[in-house]
Amino acid sequence: MPPASLKTGRSVPSSAGGATPSWWARPGLAHEEGGLRLGGADLEVLARREGTPLYVYDRARVLANLERLRAALTAAVPRGRIFYAMKANRHGPLLRALRTSGRCGVDVCSPGELQRALDAGFRERDISYTGTSMSAADAAVLAAHPRVVINCDSRSALRRIAGVSPGRAVGLRINPGLGIGYRQNPRLTYAGGAGTKFGIPWEEMPAAAAEARDLGLKLDGLHVHAGCGWLSPQLPMLNRILARVGQVVAAVGPVRYVNLGGGLGIPLVRGDRPLDLAAWSRLIGQYFGGATHEVWLEPGDYLVKDSGVLLLEVTEVEMKAGVCYVGLNGGFNLHPEPVFYQLPLEPVPVRPRGGPRRKVTLAGNINEVHDLWAREVRLPLPEPGDVLALLNAGGYGAAMASDHCRRGEWREILI
Amino acid sequence: MPPASLKTGRSVPSSAGGATPSWWARPGLAHEEGGLRLGGADLEVLARREGTPLYVYDRARVLANLERLRAALTAAVPRGRIFYAMKANRHGPLLRALRTSGRCGVDVCSPGELQRALDAGFRERDISYTGTSMSAADAAVLAAHPRVVINCDSRSALRRIAGVSPGRAVGLRINPGLGIGYRQNPRLTYAGGAGTKFGIPWEEMPAAAAEARDLGLKLDGLHVHAGCGWLSPQLPMLNRILARVGQVVAAVGPVRYVNLGGGLGIPLVRGDRPLDLAAWSRLIGQYFGGATHEVWLEPGDYLVKDSGVLLLEVTEVEMKAGVCYVGLNGGFNLHPEPVFYQLPLEPVPVRPRGGPRRKVTLAGNINEVHDLWAREVRLPLPEPGDVLALLNAGGYGAAMASDHCRRGEWREILI
Repeated sequence: MPPASLKTGRSVPSSAGGATPSWWARPGLAHEEGGLRLGGADLEVLARREGTPLYVYDRARVLANLERLRAALTAAVPRGRIFYAMKANRHGPLLRALRTSGRCGVDVCSPGELQRALDAGFRERDISYTGTSMSAADAAVLAAHPRVVINCDSRSALRRIAGVSPGRAVGLRINPGLGIGYRQNPRLTYAGGAGTKFGIPWEEMPAAAAEARDLGLKLDGLHVHAGCGWLSPQLPMLNRILARVGQVVAAVGPVRYVNLGGGLGIPLVRGDRPLDLAAWSRLIGQYFGGATHEVWLEPGDYLVKDSGVLLLEVTEVEMKAGVCYVGLNGGFNLHPEPVFYQLPLEPVPVRPRGGPRRKVTLAGNINEVHDLWAREVRLPLPEPGDVLALLNAGGYGAAMASDHCRRGEWREILI
Repeated sequence: MPPASLKTGRSVPSSAGGATPSWWARPGLAHEEGGLRLGGADLEVLARREGTPLYVYDRARVLANLERLRAALTAAVPRGRIFYAMKANRHGPLLRALRTSGRCGVDVCSPGELQRALDAGFRERDISYTGTSMSAADAAVLAAHPRVVINCDSRSALRRIAGVSPGRAVGLRINPGLGIGYRQNPRLTYAGGAGTKFGIPWEEMPAAAAEARDLGLKLDGLHVHAGCGWLSPQLPMLNRILARVGQVVAAVGPVRYVNLGGGLGIPLVRGDRPLDLAAWSRLIGQYFGGATHEVWLEPGDYLVKDSGVLLLEVTEVEMKAGVCYVGLNGGFNLHPEPVFYQLPLEPVPVRPRGGPRRKVTLAGNINEVHDLWAREVRLPLPEPGDVLALLNAGGYGAAMASDHCRRGEWREILI
């Protein structure tokens, strides 16, 4: 059966083969001539050539996201810097693309990530380290890289650094006591409520800053990261968090930088609207537009999530007890967000078939009962061998993948 | 400060350094002379020699678990077989120990696991394959290993096998429409309720068996696995499931084997009582004691979970907003069960310090808010550098570990 777009004789660039417009379509990601394209590449062709499971990342989209955010930051504050949070995606070519752009540094959270940043060509001064539960071994690695910026997560970490890097300039991570996350998702809300392991409670910051100075360290900056994936509805909470950060800055005295972390989200389901970046920029400017310190950001998902798709092949289509299961050749071990974080990936047939949309449940190939990519979503019914794209897979996918059930074979490419 | 057991002048083999007896202590796992020993090995010495994070598995415990289960199965049915479910733990030396015992086969769920079973020396006839979402590539691997037993998870899988291995003997996996799991945990309950991707609904089994025969395949066996981690309180549900399996066996005609899957659990927290294996054995005997077919089992956790500990080092002890956080040098990426399955690992200091127990929260070194091993548990307060053991870490730990945040460096040893 020909794809829907050919059957109707029209190009349907913003539709996954049916009547409903696709909420996710954008320049660089759309069905064209019946096939899904990302950054100009025909994903069907890529899947056949490279094999599946396959992650595909669009370099141009990553850099466009970076430029958009830089522009908004530049509009807000006199001196801003961006450090890409590597934990979202550490694919080597992607890191090198960011480094050669010259438009951002990189944030790392472990000695392994630090080494990866150096391997990608980032200079120490363009690397910030924002880790947690710092071990003696972690501190020893940091001591060997004296120009890396360190944001200490605890007073214990301050003492560790003072022990191995006397006199070093450090930042201190604040727990603002308020959290913010995509649709109030508790797994993504990093402060507030029942407390969090991260950072130093904001009320305790003056004492921590005094201890840093007593230890002979130079208090270089402050850091805050209060949650992930937030969109415009969460800006009022960001407002409250920034107010609290402002209080801490006033209390602990002048610093070179205030790092506002990351957490800026992207739409994941129909109905989500993109973050109003102009409103975000105004909010940042309101608090820090006249600041003498630099304002840093640490975005991860905002740069990479919508740049990537995960391509899987349909293994079977089978009715079981009234449910239409579409089996795929990869499971939740390749991308844990849908199962463990309730963060969906949007399923889109690469070459949508004709016929009505059917309600299907997308199942992975892992022997666990929760290994479902999506339950009862409406798709043109695929056939075994068809390729399905899971959109918004560019962040916290491959970086968190495991070899559970020895199903951990996948590839990544940057186009 | 000396450990509590020395302070009191007594040996306290069943206590983690305090007044309360340790519910988890058993021969082969106890504090002796102040230090935690597993299978005769001093875990402090092992941690210092091998480094942490370190998984330690006790070969003798695995084999004792296997013998106990074999005895219970042998008491129940005339001909029983056990296939160890490799997905729980695929550490090479552990697989070889099971193979050389000659007391079990191995169950695999992917081509990668099949290869690992062959590498460990298992013969094809001692390997069963119980996968899901079978791809053409999976089927091609199975065709190359004609003596491996295959339990087909769907009618689509039957057709795939018929296409590449004409006339082959196969098993069919039943969905009994009833689920069973540790404390009714939905992530571990593999059937019933809102349905599951696994197996063929029991009402549809006669049609599936007829299709297998029409395809020229030989219906060799039936398979059922309804959930994980169940203990004695769940035996009445197992009773109902076995009744349903009996109905299916009667309906689809004589088979060589009925595989009852795994799922037998172990105590995870104080108050859990060990599965009453005699009661389990009587139940199996009641349904299959007079059967002409063989009865197979597929245990994973039951053999390996309580054989293993994960050793981590304390990085910091710090009060934050009234909570005492104990940081560790490994996080949930090394063992996902506490965070993602609500299956706790019991924390035990390897050399418990004296002093009263304190309420502490154990935090990992991953930059995610939920990366906590345990919240507000009572332990003798440790100091940085102390080694902590997380008990019952032998199953679904290393096998599911990831390199998230590039914190995926750990070792495994079998003693």
